[in-house]
Amino acid sequence: MAEIIAVGSELLTPSRTDTNSLYLTDQLNRLGIEVTRKTIVGDSREGIAEALSRALQAADVVLVTGGLGPTNDDLTREAAADALSRPLLVDESSVRRLEELYRRFGVAMTDNNRRQAMAPQGAQVLVNGKGTAPGIFILEGGKLVFLLPGPPRELHPMVERQVVPLIRRHVRVAEQRLRQLRIASLPESGVDSRIEGLYRDYPNVETTILSSVGVIDVFFYWKGADDPRLANAQLDELTGKVRRELGTAVFADGPQALEEVVGNLLKEKGLRLAAAESCTGGWLGKMLTDVPGSSAYFLGGVVAYSNQLKLDLLHVSADSLKRFGAVSETVAGEMSSGVRLAAGVDLGLSITGVAGPEGGSPDKPVGTVCFGLSSAKGTSVKKRRLPGDRDAIRLRAARFALDWLRRTLI
Amino acid sequence: MAEIIAVGSELLTPSRTDTNSLYLTDQLNRLGIEVTRKTIVGDSREGIAEALSRALQAADVVLVTGGLGPTNDDLTREAAADALSRPLLVDESSVRRLEELYRRFGVAMTDNNRRQAMAPQGAQVLVNGKGTAPGIFILEGGKLVFLLPGPPRELHPMVERQVVPLIRRHVRVAEQRLRQLRIASLPESGVDSRIEGLYRDYPNVETTILSSVGVIDVFFYWKGADDPRLANAQLDELTGKVRRELGTAVFADGPQALEEVVGNLLKEKGLRLAAAESCTGGWLGKMLTDVPGSSAYFLGGVVAYSNQLKLDLLHVSADSLKRFGAVSETVAGEMSSGVRLAAGVDLGLSITGVAGPEGGSPDKPVGTVCFGLSSAKGTSVKKRRLPGDRDAIRLRAARFALDWLRRTLI
Repeated sequence: MAEIIAVGSELLTPSRTDTNSLYLTDQLNRLGIEVTRKTIVGDSREGIAEALSRALQAADVVLVTGGLGPTNDDLTREAAADALSRPLLVDESSVRRLEELYRRFGVAMTDNNRRQAMAPQGAQVLVNGKGTAPGIFILEGGKLVFLLPGPPRELHPMVERQVVPLIRRHVRVAEQRLRQLRIASLPESGVDSRIEGLYRDYPNVETTILSSVGVIDVFFYWKGADDPRLANAQLDELTGKVRRELGTAVFADGPQALEEVVGNLLKEKGLRLAAAESCTGGWLGKMLTDVPGSSAYFLGGVVAYSNQLKLDLLHVSADSLKRFGAVSETVAGEMSSGVRLAAGVDLGLSITGVAGPEGGSPDKPVGTVCFGLSSAKGTSVKKRRLPGDRDAIRLRAARFALDWLRRTLI
Repeated sequence: MAEIIAVGSELLTPSRTDTNSLYLTDQLNRLGIEVTRKTIVGDSREGIAEALSRALQAADVVLVTGGLGPTNDDLTREAAADALSRPLLVDESSVRRLEELYRRFGVAMTDNNRRQAMAPQGAQVLVNGKGTAPGIFILEGGKLVFLLPGPPRELHPMVERQVVPLIRRHVRVAEQRLRQLRIASLPESGVDSRIEGLYRDYPNVETTILSSVGVIDVFFYWKGADDPRLANAQLDELTGKVRRELGTAVFADGPQALEEVVGNLLKEKGLRLAAAESCTGGWLGKMLTDVPGSSAYFLGGVVAYSNQLKLDLLHVSADSLKRFGAVSETVAGEMSSGVRLAAGVDLGLSITGVAGPEGGSPDKPVGTVCFGLSSAKGTSVKKRRLPGDRDAIRLRAARFALDWLRRTLI
């Protein structure tokens, strides 16, 4: 069991949340270590020390991030020394490294900078390859305490190269205890009712179902005996059954995003895509181009937020717009074939809908979204009523379109 | 001083972070109440009770979110009863409300559903207008404890209509102790060095500078005597000085997003905009259309991720593409005028750049981005080298384009 403590007064403001803990949780879970509590404290020596003392009562591994820098606000070293009742000593190798670094930066090293070379007695110093503040590892009565830098670009390499190997050496870890399946275009309750009968047969596997907008993650976590072979066999068996039950609704068996999966399918098949977006305003294109290398299969398209652009750039017929309205299967179909022809590509994908909060009608309430998918073989259309607020409707619409495309490609 | 406790095992996984606390922190800060610790615990009765007991030792106001639903995992009510040593009693008005709700849903009310009507003795029940689980307010030795539902759409109205008025009634709050200025297109260190001399003169104001990608927030928090008149006068004076120093770089004096500010300026001036995006792939359009009502001034545009679409839909000249490359001021200029003419609008805004990780060259390294802004009066171009990874470069580029447009409109 592990606890994470994030240090920094900025994490107690309305605009900043602690995201390092997600990364650390993932790294710990991969080692089969569960996180049981996260605490966020300000730059207070007393607050940090109290959180660390309390964490050591419950957890075997405690990761503290932040508060290791050179300023007077950075108090994690002092707080850890307090909590562990150990004096802070100067680590000579760290002093030399800091002197060298500051010389290279061409700035004088102040006493505050020198504080970064302090560590509680008996600690092991972890070299920071990306910044000045070293990390600190302390073995306290068989428990592992890590003091780690806050900036992700310093934290990640330190964790992967130094912290994970140290945990492996000191804690009996059971790796590959976790499996993940990602599912699109199904409601959470539908997923649960279909697979409940399957995972109930595995009392040693903890099944967690998490839904975010338009995507559901199912995690299977082995909590049985520390027997990697049994764990793997049981997890493989259960995920196999769940995959068979849910069929093509499962789009990934790891943390891949829907847009990566769709991108790989397009690449494999040598197909090129263009998008015509109305209510999503560019979100579908943004998502597709989040993936590095997406220019190999995504050429772009048209954001036709207004009817005029649907007419001028997508050659939607004025008659269809008048008779069926901009949010209609007919117009969605014409948008998808229009963008396919305009871009000269294999596939055209379109979205047009009422994202709200205004613009709904009894006939087409907020959340009504139509989709078109066009290829040389013809054009298909779909219509859905998507729940949520403006933001959720738009995100769901973009993900639904991607998932529809994925299902037609497999 | 306040503490926030977020309950839910899903918040201890790698894929979920507690975002409710940002909203709650904002609401508390507006009342002049500082958040001193946030704790995230799983669905454990003992864990929740321990966190609540500890929070009550340090804070005057404790907000607990999550764990109020009808399932066996929802243990916040029981844990609060444990921590406060009060029995759990059935609240009859809640039972009647739940019965009515479940009747309307057309489902039978189970014993588990009925648990939602339980509250620690002496508690005040807060009606949930958006879901089944009521909130709970307990006055414990002069301290305020709120148990609140986790889903934001249930949480927000309950906080704004019931929790904030209750806090106002019971705690001596000093409102309007906080001012915020938002700044775009300046580096954090540049902002600090320019305003340091100003805020140093106000020892009773705590100044915090936070930078996210492309936007810097400066918060001024009054920590002096509980004298609203003095606080207001000093905060007004300081923010006035900072505004004068930073000039047009300040785009908002509240939490408004850049795209809202730009939207309001376009609306005021009756101007219509279209966008031509290459490396941002639709992100600029997505951002502009995040704002409800944006169809009044944003018509859409072209996502020209490929050169072919730059030629076909934006009528960029093949010669410019060949001579200067897709990432050049010339092509950016042609993209902006191309989209303006294609959409028949007043303003065309364009972005073309190297977002990476691949595609950089010594001449145009990753992060090189060119921008164009075209109106009937002519076309301007800009070129920038933006720092960060693919995601940060793309977000910075979209925000830079928006901010450039804003500066030309004021």
